[in-house]
Amino acid sequence: MKISRRKALGIVGCTVVGGTMAATMGTSLAFTQKDKEFSWTPHKLDPVESALVGYNGYYYKGLGCCYGAFYGIVGIMGERYGAPYSQFPFSMMEVGKSGISEWGTICGALLGAASAYALFWGREERDPMVTELFRWYQKAVFPIFDPGEATNPKGVKGPIPTSVSGSPLCHISVSKWCYETKIEAGSKERGERCARLTADVTAKAIEIMNAKIDGKFAALYGSTDAEKTCVECHGKGKEAAYNKTKMDCTPCHSGSEHSTNKFKDHP
Amino acid sequence: MKISRRKALGIVGCTVVGGTMAATMGTSLAFTQKDKEFSWTPHKLDPVESALVGYNGYYYKGLGCCYGAFYGIVGIMGERYGAPYSQFPFSMMEVGKSGISEWGTICGALLGAASAYALFWGREERDPMVTELFRWYQKAVFPIFDPGEATNPKGVKGPIPTSVSGSPLCHISVSKWCYETKIEAGSKERGERCARLTADVTAKAIEIMNAKIDGKFAALYGSTDAEKTCVECHGKGKEAAYNKTKMDCTPCHSGSEHSTNKFKDHP
Repeated sequence: MKISRRKALGIVGCTVVGGTMAATMGTSLAFTQKDKEFSWTPHKLDPVESALVGYNGYYYKGLGCCYGAFYGIVGIMGERYGAPYSQFPFSMMEVGKSGISEWGTICGALLGAASAYALFWGREERDPMVTELFRWYQKAVFPIFDPGEATNPKGVKGPIPTSVSGSPLCHISVSKWCYETKIEAGSKERGERCARLTADVTAKAIEIMNAKIDGKFAALYGSTDAEKTCVECHGKGKEAAYNKTKMDCTPCHSGSEHSTNKFKDHP
Repeated sequence: MKISRRKALGIVGCTVVGGTMAATMGTSLAFTQKDKEFSWTPHKLDPVESALVGYNGYYYKGLGCCYGAFYGIVGIMGERYGAPYSQFPFSMMEVGKSGISEWGTICGALLGAASAYALFWGREERDPMVTELFRWYQKAVFPIFDPGEATNPKGVKGPIPTSVSGSPLCHISVSKWCYETKIEAGSKERGERCARLTADVTAKAIEIMNAKIDGKFAALYGSTDAEKTCVECHGKGKEAAYNKTKMDCTPCHSGSEHSTNKFKDHP
């Protein structure tokens, strides 16, 4: 008996699109996935080389930070080792640009690096690697990378002012940098800052990945002091175990000038 | 002359891995990408059918929300139409689980849907679709979907309490739900809430996608009142144009009990 998921649910009026779908979807509601899982093999890369690829990837057709970091890892494996790396639909990684379609959620460079890891390692292996990368990012003074003579034609040459990102969120990382440097979020300088940050994240992500491949990965960054305090009541099994995050609590929960009421007596 | 990117940078000691890399990487620093871009063709799907796929995908090997939403879109295209959809390394989409490795950044279901869009549309076409989905999400009272008799064996049957998510961030969406319902973040009920939310996001994402394919997509959700107020000074070209986000400003900048100083006189 050939039956689609939808027919199995008793919903009438569905269109069965050929026998293939019916066959692969089976006769029950049981979920199956056909592809191989976590089967790609990671390869060690050169963080210095890939930093520049990530930087230039940022500017390539305006695909941005997430694409740049991902291509600096998986794209280079594709150029060097071919399939399956080279078959990835790379331009999909534009998804993380400006924190996903200008929303300022996750920093796209971090998303690109975490997505690359996810091609090679399942969550038990991957989560500590991502956590190390994100905790390093929260404390980093960006940008670190300077392309010098290799500055992209679309970019800005010379030194760029820096700030501590404070958060894996694009909104906080970018807006804090803009606020502290008084450079507009829509400026060419801010774009160059994020291109260089993409280089930084690509290089750090590869450093972590290379150590993992060598069996030498060890986390250097622990919980922030704020996290340690907050989980005393909000951690798993505690009296108000409602918290879902590993982000530092300080930017949004410390009563800073940025998180006080901006809708009342705001200059 | 065969030379790697790294050699072109004048960095000594690099290993050139065969002629293929050197040939594809070229002799200059110019960035190139070899794959076809934005070349996948989207297909209309049934939001009701895919909602259940997204829901069960959430529980499949614990791959979570991002995988569930993405598989409910691209996975179903793969089951129905084969390549290139079926060749995507789907388990990579576990990357968004719990807001990326438990960090509570972007809601993984939203990331899964936005990533699916990014296979079919470049940013100019895609950004308004993502914005519509995210703005709908911010105001939605989750979960809406109820699997009834089709409740996953790993899930929780029956009604689930609801809350307005308020944000595309996993941390706010989940922790607000937990705080309002007094159900722990690490509980089975919270997992079921997120599985059902994955179904909701999958269905809404397909509704937007189908309208786009039909040439009938039109945004229904505008900026929030808070956004309209804040961009008067913080928007592009204004006196303090430091803002990078489209998220509603209210959760973090309205002086609510959640964003006041938690490190002083906190119960």
